[in-house]
Amino acid sequence: MENFRFHVTTDIRFGKNRLGELPEVLNQFGKRVLLVYGGGSIKRNGLYAQIMAQLESNDNQVFEVNGVEPNPRIETVERGAALCRKENIDVILAVGGGSVIDCSKAIAGGTFASGDLWEMVTNRAYAGPALPLVTVLTLAATGSEMNRGAVISNLKTKQKLGFGGQNFLPKASFLDPTNTYTVNAYQTAAGSADIFSHLMENYFDNTPGTDVEDGIAEGLMRAVIKNVPVALATPDDYDARANLMWASSLALNGLTGASKAGAWSCHAMEHELSAFYDITHGVGLAILTPRWMEHILNERTVPKLARYAKEVWGIRETVPELAARMGIQKLSDYFSECGIPMTLPEVGITDETNFQKMAEQAVASSKISTLAFEPLAVEDVVSIYQACMTPSKYV
Amino acid sequence: MENFRFHVTTDIRFGKNRLGELPEVLNQFGKRVLLVYGGGSIKRNGLYAQIMAQLESNDNQVFEVNGVEPNPRIETVERGAALCRKENIDVILAVGGGSVIDCSKAIAGGTFASGDLWEMVTNRAYAGPALPLVTVLTLAATGSEMNRGAVISNLKTKQKLGFGGQNFLPKASFLDPTNTYTVNAYQTAAGSADIFSHLMENYFDNTPGTDVEDGIAEGLMRAVIKNVPVALATPDDYDARANLMWASSLALNGLTGASKAGAWSCHAMEHELSAFYDITHGVGLAILTPRWMEHILNERTVPKLARYAKEVWGIRETVPELAARMGIQKLSDYFSECGIPMTLPEVGITDETNFQKMAEQAVASSKISTLAFEPLAVEDVVSIYQACMTPSKYV
Repeated sequence: MENFRFHVTTDIRFGKNRLGELPEVLNQFGKRVLLVYGGGSIKRNGLYAQIMAQLESNDNQVFEVNGVEPNPRIETVERGAALCRKENIDVILAVGGGSVIDCSKAIAGGTFASGDLWEMVTNRAYAGPALPLVTVLTLAATGSEMNRGAVISNLKTKQKLGFGGQNFLPKASFLDPTNTYTVNAYQTAAGSADIFSHLMENYFDNTPGTDVEDGIAEGLMRAVIKNVPVALATPDDYDARANLMWASSLALNGLTGASKAGAWSCHAMEHELSAFYDITHGVGLAILTPRWMEHILNERTVPKLARYAKEVWGIRETVPELAARMGIQKLSDYFSECGIPMTLPEVGITDETNFQKMAEQAVASSKISTLAFEPLAVEDVVSIYQACMTPSKYV
Repeated sequence: MENFRFHVTTDIRFGKNRLGELPEVLNQFGKRVLLVYGGGSIKRNGLYAQIMAQLESNDNQVFEVNGVEPNPRIETVERGAALCRKENIDVILAVGGGSVIDCSKAIAGGTFASGDLWEMVTNRAYAGPALPLVTVLTLAATGSEMNRGAVISNLKTKQKLGFGGQNFLPKASFLDPTNTYTVNAYQTAAGSADIFSHLMENYFDNTPGTDVEDGIAEGLMRAVIKNVPVALATPDDYDARANLMWASSLALNGLTGASKAGAWSCHAMEHELSAFYDITHGVGLAILTPRWMEHILNERTVPKLARYAKEVWGIRETVPELAARMGIQKLSDYFSECGIPMTLPEVGITDETNFQKMAEQAVASSKISTLAFEPLAVEDVVSIYQACMTPSKYV
């Protein structure tokens, strides 16, 4: 196990009917609130009205940034940061999923940054000050509600980059599973694939002696596998939504990864798919992951892949390579049964024109060629992208 | 899943060679430090000298409470609180295991409490102020290094009571696995039985829809089962000690229990054993737990017991009751193989004189008769104590 620091101070308020606690939480920071949200679903489902009622009765002065994109763009960050500076905002209230929260983190830091905000992103580590951030989560997916990271896109440079800082950690996050009842089947499945991928990325790592982290990841993966079909069949099943929501936060708050030294493979490859084609992040991950697993399956990696098959999917096959392949097949079938399109052409990527450039960028903007579970060169990434063009069988 | 708040702000500094960070951490609170420790093992293994060197170079004024008992007593709390008041202490530095940390929490609160400090304990919930607490952990067991609770004993009233408060949460905890290399086999096994029991107590609960919490608990149990024998065979195996140490913190910081509504059974029964006979807490738990499981095994409880057998012990038996019994046997055998004496006479409790009174106190001072996984009346508890008098077989 590697040395690590775990200092996750977010005040999680989990459960139903807790929005009455919002004024108490916000008043720690001040009265001038920037409300950040996305495409308006919170207006349709009533959450916006509930929150505004709380803010009005609390005498908050509310300013808004809305229309945050599914892959939030640097222009939106710039718009929000300018508003915070102009209006002397005290606290940002992000209401939405990972995109809204990530955008809010970048605004929180961007308020204090000078010059080109894209530089703040490309620097990757942000050590400066940030406005306090409170979140109301509406999608179980990225884990941004309980961590320091954010991902911002730049369509001009065709880049989608993760960056982060201690001061981006939300001060408090309201996790009410009922706020995800209206998330449609496709976004529920895509969000869950994102959770699953975070767990897989941390799990497949070469740091020795990480039984605690791996045991937690296996348990969270089993919880996701069990509860996604329930949430898809019965969108207002409270316990299914609750398990997915809490799993999303725990998958990426450091519990399964803080002690590990490696680099994430599928996220690096997926970021290029999203940057070039603006596809749904979780869907990109679901398509890539089984192909990546098959590509890196070798004598050295097979023990961990076989352990994964056994502990996560309950596979009892004792020949390691076969067990590993059965685990990959299970994962692929599972994503498919959740309604996720499992090839790139199904999400509109019909030719290989950009694969070489995307692969070069994936390698250049990450450490997958040196620190991944199995190091990936540009040609490996191209080959994995190519495998995503047609349906695959793994056993 | 029940509503819960998760707000665990302890700054965990995990790993080797981090004591150089101690001055930075302590200086947040002030220069006058109360150093609390136990029977002197930290003097024998050099940790005391290392810490004092840091404190001296940092110009701290250091006062000491030493000789904290394995089941810390209210008199020691009173001694510490009086010293803190007299010397205007700024921060408490607890160096030891759960007993030292628990005692330090009670001192931290007791400094501000007036009158009889045993009343502070019997009130169970402490809402008052407390001195800031920093810990250096030397035993993987109670989880006190990352939670709000403390257990204090009163030999006069023959009571051992848990109490807690938000302000008892350590500000920072240094978790260096090498500090547990000198823990002997018996204490290593007993501490691990304590970790295991925390996981079991949270796991066996009737709150529905807790797959996330249960999956985490199963993963942590597997990590403990795998690493205890390694630590016993090779006391300086870093990764084994690291997994046990991190498991101890995560087993009782709210992750596996925050969303659950039930009462703990074996701890309530064990507290009476320790209060009456001053035996090692983890050993008492190890003796009680399999007997408790067999006692509460019935048609209603068997599904969870069978799930436990499968996910924790890998048992493939498909008849639920038999699987459950095999799981109990595995647990009992495991404790035995760790060198834990598995009957009460082996720890010096040779007659049943006090069982009735202990059972009455266990029921009176807890909610096991109403909120336990399977409610326990006084006669149930007596019967479980009696079963601990002789070796048991469960299959």
